[in-house]
Amino acid sequence: MHSAQFIAETSSNGVLERDFTVGDIPGVLWSPASGPDRAPLVLMGHGGGTHKRWPAMTGRAHRLVTGCGFHVAGIDAPGHGDRPRTAHDEQEIAALFRAREAGEPEGPIVVRYNAHLAERAVPELRTTLDALQELPEIGADGPVGYFGLNMGTAIGVPFVATDSRITAAVFGLHWPDALAESAKQITIPIEFDMQWDDEHIPREAGLALFDAFASQEKTLHANAGRHKELPRFEADSAVRFFARHLGRAVTASA
Amino acid sequence: MHSAQFIAETSSNGVLERDFTVGDIPGVLWSPASGPDRAPLVLMGHGGGTHKRWPAMTGRAHRLVTGCGFHVAGIDAPGHGDRPRTAHDEQEIAALFRAREAGEPEGPIVVRYNAHLAERAVPELRTTLDALQELPEIGADGPVGYFGLNMGTAIGVPFVATDSRITAAVFGLHWPDALAESAKQITIPIEFDMQWDDEHIPREAGLALFDAFASQEKTLHANAGRHKELPRFEADSAVRFFARHLGRAVTASA
Repeated sequence: MHSAQFIAETSSNGVLERDFTVGDIPGVLWSPASGPDRAPLVLMGHGGGTHKRWPAMTGRAHRLVTGCGFHVAGIDAPGHGDRPRTAHDEQEIAALFRAREAGEPEGPIVVRYNAHLAERAVPELRTTLDALQELPEIGADGPVGYFGLNMGTAIGVPFVATDSRITAAVFGLHWPDALAESAKQITIPIEFDMQWDDEHIPREAGLALFDAFASQEKTLHANAGRHKELPRFEADSAVRFFARHLGRAVTASA
Repeated sequence: MHSAQFIAETSSNGVLERDFTVGDIPGVLWSPASGPDRAPLVLMGHGGGTHKRWPAMTGRAHRLVTGCGFHVAGIDAPGHGDRPRTAHDEQEIAALFRAREAGEPEGPIVVRYNAHLAERAVPELRTTLDALQELPEIGADGPVGYFGLNMGTAIGVPFVATDSRITAAVFGLHWPDALAESAKQITIPIEFDMQWDDEHIPREAGLALFDAFASQEKTLHANAGRHKELPRFEADSAVRFFARHLGRAVTASA
């Protein structure tokens, strides 16, 4: 079993940001700069083609840390960020770009490639969580949330379905094809984002994935707009969702 | 033109509550007890079979006043609260109770009766807003929101479609049959609540009404649960929605 190795540390706007590795998985842990007090952890999964420190990721992490005092961690998915791509990764990315250029549907390629990445990524998320739970400020018995849209949902749904440590999750912006069966295994509270005018994910597909979750408490947030136009206030909504379910007050800033 | 006549005043938990009449329409105006400063107004519409001071109404009003410093006003719908019922009201209410007892669908009666009530109620809302805008703490040019679910949506959609003073609205929990055409005229920001497992309103019907709004910014909140199980956190979400669109900061309590 690998422990988390901290390799760099910076601090800004009240947030301590620590780079770590767990084996060969690179990650970043955001915590309140005021001190690493024991607090719930939120794991974040980034979208396809981005990485653990993508602006949206950093923004969400800061909101979760400053709004609720949570710890927040993200790792690079296989083939993303600081991690090498396999020949298979290169093939699939080329196929996606070809489809995009030809104006053909991206869905079938994204669904297939993300399902493949999830198989590689789920064990890594588990290993990362094992290591982070060794830290005294996180601990083995605290509540843990998961927050991932797009590819972060493709990886997160099978992860959450098979890891009982996760007690609340925010998902969204994906197809049901490869995920509905895992979603049916999930009973924890869920907030699910979709775009009402998504040019890639048909409306019925987004609704079907939301419908698949077995959770007694689940909320769909569907906003007018295209795939990439998810309103920024949904990040604040996610913060409040985690505050409700992981047991923290939200300060006014969130 | 009628002015608002104030007939009683109480104060609790930081909220000043003033009973008023506009002609023969009884209403209540909730304001910050700290003083009637100029602030945006939110008009509230109550559900069928309830009234302006129903606990859910009072609770929402208090959240809007203490969370954002808004003024909040509600009036009794025709045939509700302190207002007399017509023979037609009695007939329709009896028809609804018969259907309920027989286990028959309530939808067709609710849709028909609420459409009738809306015809009586929309001019009253307009008259009430005219009168409230004469008050110095509200004024004729300030932003005005509308917040009404169930029958409050059946009345509110045709009201908002025909009154350009309303700049943001929260609706939900109704059928599209009598409302979709009015909804297509509405372009202001909308938050729309529906229950994913509503035993009265089919899922497709709720989605169709949300879809009908022409608003560029509209958000659907669909929660797992039956018709009457709308989660309480949706009231807090409405407060934040109005804070965003009517221009007020939300304090931590909301």
